[in-house]
Amino acid sequence: MAVGLKKLQELSPINGIQLGVCKAGIKYPDRYDLTLIEICENASVAAVFTKNQFCAAPVTVSKQHLALASPRYLVINTGNANAGTGERGLSDAKLSCETIADLAQVPAQSIMPFSTGVIGENLPMDKIIDAFPAALNNCKADNWVLAAEAIMTTDTMPKGYSKTFQCNGETVVITGIAKGSGMICPNMATLLSYVATDANIKQDFLQEILIKVNNNSFNSITVDSDTSTNDSCVLIASGKGGLYLDKNTDDSIVSLFTEQLQEVMNHLAQSLIRDAEGASKFIAVTVKNANSEIECRQIAYTVAHSPLVKTAFFASDPNWGRILAAVGRAGVKDLDVDQIKIFLNDICIVENGARAESYSEEKGQSVMDQQDIEIIIDVSRGKTSHTIWTSDLSYDYIKINAEYRT
Amino acid sequence: MAVGLKKLQELSPINGIQLGVCKAGIKYPDRYDLTLIEICENASVAAVFTKNQFCAAPVTVSKQHLALASPRYLVINTGNANAGTGERGLSDAKLSCETIADLAQVPAQSIMPFSTGVIGENLPMDKIIDAFPAALNNCKADNWVLAAEAIMTTDTMPKGYSKTFQCNGETVVITGIAKGSGMICPNMATLLSYVATDANIKQDFLQEILIKVNNNSFNSITVDSDTSTNDSCVLIASGKGGLYLDKNTDDSIVSLFTEQLQEVMNHLAQSLIRDAEGASKFIAVTVKNANSEIECRQIAYTVAHSPLVKTAFFASDPNWGRILAAVGRAGVKDLDVDQIKIFLNDICIVENGARAESYSEEKGQSVMDQQDIEIIIDVSRGKTSHTIWTSDLSYDYIKINAEYRT
Repeated sequence: MAVGLKKLQELSPINGIQLGVCKAGIKYPDRYDLTLIEICENASVAAVFTKNQFCAAPVTVSKQHLALASPRYLVINTGNANAGTGERGLSDAKLSCETIADLAQVPAQSIMPFSTGVIGENLPMDKIIDAFPAALNNCKADNWVLAAEAIMTTDTMPKGYSKTFQCNGETVVITGIAKGSGMICPNMATLLSYVATDANIKQDFLQEILIKVNNNSFNSITVDSDTSTNDSCVLIASGKGGLYLDKNTDDSIVSLFTEQLQEVMNHLAQSLIRDAEGASKFIAVTVKNANSEIECRQIAYTVAHSPLVKTAFFASDPNWGRILAAVGRAGVKDLDVDQIKIFLNDICIVENGARAESYSEEKGQSVMDQQDIEIIIDVSRGKTSHTIWTSDLSYDYIKINAEYRT
Repeated sequence: MAVGLKKLQELSPINGIQLGVCKAGIKYPDRYDLTLIEICENASVAAVFTKNQFCAAPVTVSKQHLALASPRYLVINTGNANAGTGERGLSDAKLSCETIADLAQVPAQSIMPFSTGVIGENLPMDKIIDAFPAALNNCKADNWVLAAEAIMTTDTMPKGYSKTFQCNGETVVITGIAKGSGMICPNMATLLSYVATDANIKQDFLQEILIKVNNNSFNSITVDSDTSTNDSCVLIASGKGGLYLDKNTDDSIVSLFTEQLQEVMNHLAQSLIRDAEGASKFIAVTVKNANSEIECRQIAYTVAHSPLVKTAFFASDPNWGRILAAVGRAGVKDLDVDQIKIFLNDICIVENGARAESYSEEKGQSVMDQQDIEIIIDVSRGKTSHTIWTSDLSYDYIKINAEYRT
């Protein structure tokens, strides 16, 4: 029941990047569950990872390897998170890297492993190792759509986005894929997302750009407040195209590139919310005129995490009192509730600490009957705005999460 | 579907306290929805209130009145929260006080008003004022059970508890009632609870005792992380009995009284969780060997609020990975995940950052099949323990909150 998400038709290849996809039978037979992303030599790779302290073994290994060598292969399995697996999990993740390194004749440290799926089970290493040659042999530039499918867990649709644009006289391509529909509340990272461009960008500058763009995209979504153990987002600049960026590049050129990358990553982040577990609504929560982004996030996430707000949206019920109650408990100091205005799209629902005089139940209902809704909370005390995206809470969320794993 | 909650049969009267209950027709016809609690002269009254900044009008008025005069009447309506009602809400709450004051020949400041129900609607003042004489005429010492019923909203059963005990050679009685089953995550307060004793306790000392006992009872529960706009807990010491307490009273006597009061308030707080919206499980989350109570609460509430943990409990699925992921994202600094042990009742499920070697799915299942379950998280870094109580997340929670108000 993805909300307004179109079928993924095609994604642009990125010069210097090939993808291999195969069926290893990790959790289910006959589904694509193992993906290799092959990166050309001399590319730059940046990454951000989950801040969950019980982070998965592949997150630990990927961080170590990225610090030591320039990545040549990303290996991603679905069906098993390799999280909560202790020492055995770490050695399994390393064994994956060593096996691919042997087959591809590259250093083991140039392999970054990623896993997603159930927590607490050991990886079926025999099945995975058996499948590596097929994945390697299958590596192709136009395998992005298949890879978007092969990294899915409870997602109902694959997610990806491509953008081709002119920047500083050069044609630039960006393509990204992402997965995730539950246990989604990224903290400085996302679930799994792989984004590549043919631009040539110095590694440290690429990392800077990723952190900034990630902050406004994957770090601004929540399905259920649950930060995963496996969140990872990788940005690859293959350097095969004509555009070159580093810290000394003119600001206007960097901005142009960053805006396009932001569009790709916003699209991916919003796609995760549109396909959130059980979602029937896509909800943007914007906090305006606050003192800081932290303040915006504090209010927006309190509203977005409130089970009462989420169930009211599921019921298409303009129960604005629940939004007001969530704003009031967000913990922002010295909030003057009489100064706050709350809107559903362009309908003012709350002002002067009470229901707006111009509000009527019919106006509220006309917004709630839509699939895409924006809640705007104007706190009238500063100059900062920020938007996060979330979904509603439905019977299907319970069904998916009560029945998953059984 | 209250979890292990027995039918409320009787509650002990408290000398000096009378309760009047009637049907004002506020939201539904023919149900008890208006309660007066009449307090004798020279009693002490303590109270704690919601920290929600959008607090309801009656909360504002009750705080003002308590600071100005010794309360003689508490007036409580269900069916309407009088929250998010701005200036009109404040004048309605004051009008209630003035009307009762006229009828009972007491100062208006000696009336404390309380409301619970839907947010954002104005009180039907004509119905409420019309009902006051009947409530006053109906005041009786043995109306506690009826009052417990008359303050309910989505609760399926009335909640109350009485304790009679000897303290310093005197017979002491404590009786309390409480309501609330959704929008429950008290912050320095509770939903509505009224507790009375015949002991004679100085007001400032009574307030001190209430804050401490409340912290371990109502401030240690959560259904859905939503702190209400109307939370209020009132503790009355009528002074009609023989026990006298003040700051100079021997510690052992104060402790004995406090323990009994804690038992009453724990029972009430746990009753709210047992009757939580849609609850099929009663879950205690204990964090042991932490550095502080704040640290305990941070971890315990993150586990208790996790929709994924809650749906796993609803499914009776020993999906311990979700508990581990929630502990990891709780934001406690420098948590050594290899030192953490997690138990379901007496079954160790996690140690050394992975599934415990002694654990089996059958053992986990045998705990999950029970209605009352304790999650114990031993973080092995300090000496503080704290327990909070919560419920699972079920289809019925969604049903109640998607259909309530429509």
